[in-house]
Amino acid sequence: MTDIEEITLKLRQFNEERDWDQFHNGKDLAIGLSVEASELLEAFLWKAPENVNPDKIREELADVLNYAFQMADKYNLNIKQIMLDKIRRNAEKYPVEKAKGSAKKYNEL
Amino acid sequence: MTDIEEITLKLRQFNEERDWDQFHNGKDLAIGLSVEASELLEAFLWKAPENVNPDKIREELADVLNYAFQMADKYNLNIKQIMLDKIRRNAEKYPVEKAKGSAKKYNEL
Amino acid sequence: MTDIEEITLKLRQFNEERDWDQFHNGKDLAIGLSVEASELLEAFLWKAPENVNPDKIREELADVLNYAFQMADKYNLNIKQIMLDKIRRNAEKYPVEKAKGSAKKYNEL
Amino acid sequence: MTDIEEITLKLRQFNEERDWDQFHNGKDLAIGLSVEASELLEAFLWKAPENVNPDKIREELADVLNYAFQMADKYNLNIKQIMLDKIRRNAEKYPVEKAKGSAKKYNEL
Repeated sequence: MTDIEEITLKLRQFNEERDWDQFHNGKDLAIGLSVEASELLEAFLWKAPENVNPDKIREELADVLNYAFQMADKYNLNIKQIMLDKIRRNAEKYPVEKAKGSAKKYNEL
Repeated sequence: MTDIEEITLKLRQFNEERDWDQFHNGKDLAIGLSVEASELLEAFLWKAPENVNPDKIREELADVLNYAFQMADKYNLNIKQIMLDKIRRNAEKYPVEKAKGSAKKYNEL
Repeated sequence: MTDIEEITLKLRQFNEERDWDQFHNGKDLAIGLSVEASELLEAFLWKAPENVNPDKIREELADVLNYAFQMADKYNLNIKQIMLDKIRRNAEKYPVEKAKGSAKKYNEL
Repeated sequence: MTDIEEITLKLRQFNEERDWDQFHNGKDLAIGLSVEASELLEAFLWKAPENVNPDKIREELADVLNYAFQMADKYNLNIKQIMLDKIRRNAEKYPVEKAKGSAKKYNEL
């Protein structure tokens, strides 16, 4: 069992024990994920990145990841595969020779 | 090497080849993550969850995960550990006997 | 003085008294606005719209509006004008005969 | 008729002509608002605030405001009143003598 599978199983078990699958439709999971990403972002509000509380980042990032893994499980998506696929596609959209040292979006390169 | 480590390495390599570390401060990574979580959410706007385009979910969720993994790498956080720690803490905040079948927040249980 | 001008003046005065203009760069204002929009959204998480606490909506919507008005002031945007302009443009993107009763995006109509 | 009332009426008319009230439940309006706030934020991604495209800010801020006004209308909230109420309450949470020149949250002051 890979580590991603292990985490996914733990999340599934957590929800089954609490009978929470009934609430976990894709739309509310997407809302929850967005709300947690925003709480992570709030840690940086009015601050230079170096002044942010690292504990807060750890906590909120864990919430984001837990929702994201549940979302993947809900839609039967293989996390490793969709992430590597995306990296491959981004490599095509942002070829090294064009994108190197540039923060421009691919359609502005 | 675990799956998570393998993906993290691929992301790191992708950024190094493009010399993008200079842009990847924590604050902008957190913005990027939040923006992608919102694009995922947009797939559900005005729709019942069952009418959502699954390709769109796969694409946007991959973006969310890629940012979240980069954020973890930036702050030297062990993804598996912070996720399992959070599940453990949530299990304490939401004990089965109280939380079963309830969508209430822990402070309302 | 219109009501929009009156509110804008009150917000400006509030910030000047606290010497907060130094923090109010556009980027952090945009983060703050997004964070507040997310707190408003959180009121709806796991819930049918009719079960949401109306006090929470009032509070969070006021925060969203206060940030949005400050953003407009920061960039010298006339709120009434940009809103009416946008309605006009949306009317062109979503002509009544095509858009009536449809939740599709303009590029799918 | 005040400016805010005039804009609210125009938005209401726009939606009635398209028979869109059926889609405009509070939850989807809150999602829409959050998605637009995120599009506004995206204008600042990887950028110093002074390098942001002002047209993009105007467009996205107008979308945010249009959703926020529709949300207020949906819940029969008086925009001017809830905004001024909030400023008053923030003035109590952030008294000038404590908050002057500080970006701390009220519970850290």
